[in-house]
Amino acid sequence: MAWLRNLARLARSSSSSSSKPANRFGSPVLSVPGFAGFSSAAAAAYAGLGPTVPGQDKPRLVILGSGWAGCRLLKGIDADLYDVVCVSPRNHMVFTPLLASTCVGTLEFRSVAEPISRIQPAVSTAPGSYFFLARCTAIDSDAHAVHCETVTDQGGIGDAPEPWKFKVSYDKLVIAAGADASTFGIRGVKEHAIFLREVHHAQEIRRKLLLNLMLSDVPGISEDEKKRLLHCVVIGGGPTGVEFSGELSDFIIKDVHERYSHVKDYIHVTLIEANEILSSFDVRLRQYATKQLTKSGVRLVRGLVKDVQPKKVVLSDGTEVPYGLLVWSTGVGPSPFVRSLEFPKSPCGRIGVDEWLRIPSVQDVFAIGDCSGFLESTGNSTLPALAQVAERQGKYLCALLNQIAKAGGGFANAAANIELGDRFVYKHLGSMATVGRYKALVDLRQSKEAKGLSLTGFISWFVWRSAYLTRVISWRNRFYVAVNWLTTIVFGRDITRI
Amino acid sequence: MAWLRNLARLARSSSSSSSKPANRFGSPVLSVPGFAGFSSAAAAAYAGLGPTVPGQDKPRLVILGSGWAGCRLLKGIDADLYDVVCVSPRNHMVFTPLLASTCVGTLEFRSVAEPISRIQPAVSTAPGSYFFLARCTAIDSDAHAVHCETVTDQGGIGDAPEPWKFKVSYDKLVIAAGADASTFGIRGVKEHAIFLREVHHAQEIRRKLLLNLMLSDVPGISEDEKKRLLHCVVIGGGPTGVEFSGELSDFIIKDVHERYSHVKDYIHVTLIEANEILSSFDVRLRQYATKQLTKSGVRLVRGLVKDVQPKKVVLSDGTEVPYGLLVWSTGVGPSPFVRSLEFPKSPCGRIGVDEWLRIPSVQDVFAIGDCSGFLESTGNSTLPALAQVAERQGKYLCALLNQIAKAGGGFANAAANIELGDRFVYKHLGSMATVGRYKALVDLRQSKEAKGLSLTGFISWFVWRSAYLTRVISWRNRFYVAVNWLTTIVFGRDITRI
Repeated sequence: MAWLRNLARLARSSSSSSSKPANRFGSPVLSVPGFAGFSSAAAAAYAGLGPTVPGQDKPRLVILGSGWAGCRLLKGIDADLYDVVCVSPRNHMVFTPLLASTCVGTLEFRSVAEPISRIQPAVSTAPGSYFFLARCTAIDSDAHAVHCETVTDQGGIGDAPEPWKFKVSYDKLVIAAGADASTFGIRGVKEHAIFLREVHHAQEIRRKLLLNLMLSDVPGISEDEKKRLLHCVVIGGGPTGVEFSGELSDFIIKDVHERYSHVKDYIHVTLIEANEILSSFDVRLRQYATKQLTKSGVRLVRGLVKDVQPKKVVLSDGTEVPYGLLVWSTGVGPSPFVRSLEFPKSPCGRIGVDEWLRIPSVQDVFAIGDCSGFLESTGNSTLPALAQVAERQGKYLCALLNQIAKAGGGFANAAANIELGDRFVYKHLGSMATVGRYKALVDLRQSKEAKGLSLTGFISWFVWRSAYLTRVISWRNRFYVAVNWLTTIVFGRDITRI
Repeated sequence: MAWLRNLARLARSSSSSSSKPANRFGSPVLSVPGFAGFSSAAAAAYAGLGPTVPGQDKPRLVILGSGWAGCRLLKGIDADLYDVVCVSPRNHMVFTPLLASTCVGTLEFRSVAEPISRIQPAVSTAPGSYFFLARCTAIDSDAHAVHCETVTDQGGIGDAPEPWKFKVSYDKLVIAAGADASTFGIRGVKEHAIFLREVHHAQEIRRKLLLNLMLSDVPGISEDEKKRLLHCVVIGGGPTGVEFSGELSDFIIKDVHERYSHVKDYIHVTLIEANEILSSFDVRLRQYATKQLTKSGVRLVRGLVKDVQPKKVVLSDGTEVPYGLLVWSTGVGPSPFVRSLEFPKSPCGRIGVDEWLRIPSVQDVFAIGDCSGFLESTGNSTLPALAQVAERQGKYLCALLNQIAKAGGGFANAAANIELGDRFVYKHLGSMATVGRYKALVDLRQSKEAKGLSLTGFISWFVWRSAYLTRVISWRNRFYVAVNWLTTIVFGRDITRI
């Protein structure tokens, strides 16, 4: 009988599913479609979070992006002072320094990804705080609002629902939307190469590598095709490219030799770099890295890529390099979103900020991380696109915003008379990179010219691992990174292609 | 200077990559394109493993499939007696009883997938043994060979390479290619519902569930659309459907309430079944399961699905059930490949076998698992499509094949006079199913009518967990299953959408 009652209840609930106007959420500030404030928007299909009401609501802080900068800010912001809204196309932060390890299964993907709601629980529990899986399409700084569109891709599986547009009013806005991989306008890079910036890139690399290993074992594949399929080419000799090459050679030396012994002699790694590898490290460390990589079987080639075709890369001197897997890691540049913004830019095309990381031409808007750079007028040079810089900026801005709110300047246009305190000053703590085979470089000097400690070898590798293990944000992921490292040593890397 | 030498070497190796005829592999039996034996094949593009030569090679055992039956056989086969070739579209075995747990993150995907090369290391190390990521397209039992085609899909990412065709001669062939999910010819099932049979199904369910949870939190989504997005509908009340519903309600009770508290009151699970849920269990256990599921908030509905549309299911009485996630789990039936085979069939359309699991009309071909059934002439009824049956058949056949090879009957057409010994007899050891909230059913009777032990509740759940933990094949996965269970209890399920 319970079955029948349920069926009747179900029938009732489904028969009422005609389209009626959108209702309010639990939050008092959530507006119904057509709220005033945007003149141009098609009101009927355009709902959003309307402006906050001082005295009734908390001020609303909107953060665009969930990378190092945005997440450090999210983590430290006082959710009693602000309602926090994070808008990002991914619901997690990627612990980028360990991403290269996931491409070959040294670490698992979920061990290096941290959900936003674990970083700032308020977004999932506080009534006025939200995480929106969406992309910001425009900023209306006069109206203090951002226009957004939901991200609904399903990784190629099934039909993606139509994106849904909405807008969010802000009291304070922080742009931490990051940068895009540079392709230098080279044809074919986006189509044929894989970047190494997001978890789905690492998943794609792992799937492709395992596919090529299996395809090359199929009867009748020619020797040349086998060599091509198993030629892994990495473009760009920065820390990401070098670490990925190191991981890949570890994978080849240990796992491919054990588990793909039919084809083990065909697999090779080539790292192509236009200048020096690891150019930010000093000459002694660079030489050590070169020696170690060569010893592990990585071919280091100096060259400039001219053209990327489906099965080969063409260098500027005409050399053709056939590949089965092509990973592109040549640094970052401003994204189309950043280019579309009409704020004054820094010399390198990033969103220009002053020394308090504000965008000086508008009220209540800040920019941090790879999308931002000091304005020329500040006299500071642009900081490198490093996790370290982004994290430090997030930490600084988080303290600044908490301080502003405490001083009563949290709402829109209310911070004009508030004392901001110290400017943001970046102090480099050092650089690290692993080169595979339990070896790494650690450079604890503030700049290439400065004096200080620099290490190479196993101890460096140990420092590298320990440093990252302590810096992974949650205890869950710290635990899983340690467990993954342990099982990689004991059982080898997982070669399941899923 | 090393750079320059490498560049020169690279240029030389790449300039020689013109298309020359395929070379031999390391294996002595690997043929060049155009080997004799198949009259119809386009010889030039059709390489393969040619027939073995008695006295020179080991006999070759070809196994189609990598499910419970095929992998149990692979695990136990003596690689000193046979060269083993496994042909399957996936390079791993899925531990299916725990697959439902991975859809919500109780377990991780890789904890329930076992690479073939860990089950039978010979496929990656022995010179004449292989694993081919491919699909069998036809069996030529007269010529003792199978036609195959590589599987190159990349999960929707990037361009898939063209499939490559090849053939493999066998001395013994075991068809363990499994079955397909039944759709009963209902329109829209394949397009809109997700099955729960492979790891990629579980990944799709997890991504979609997390996407819907986030989409429903976006401003301006109507109440009805929120209800629809968060309505998870499960079709089929067998163990898979029930366990998935239980996992889903656990996820809702614990993780959605904590991490998606804005939308927690909108999410519901409905399980639709045409007959009784868990019909293979006895009435007392069924009633317990019904009570537990209802208590956890799962709506049990008796109904017959007539039509599946993109956003709603229509039942045969006209009731419309809107859904955001639709999981289809109504049992299995013969796959198109099995239907295409011209062997005599069992009463339910599976490949017909005798009591030694041979296909009696041809030499040296066996069939096990869900793709096979006893011929009517044997007087045995078809066994249920259970992991337990498949595993037992794999174990039996593995012993039989080892015995045949030891008796000198390993090569093609050489086993005619060999004593086969005992017939295959299936003895049911019992059934288990979990219903969520640390509760399960364990039924240790041989059939519904037989006497014996049956348990419900927490102790059952503990038995359920322990039994599976010990039956997971490798120590690596045993370790990870335990670690995943532990972290799910301590930290909750991972809601990263990657």
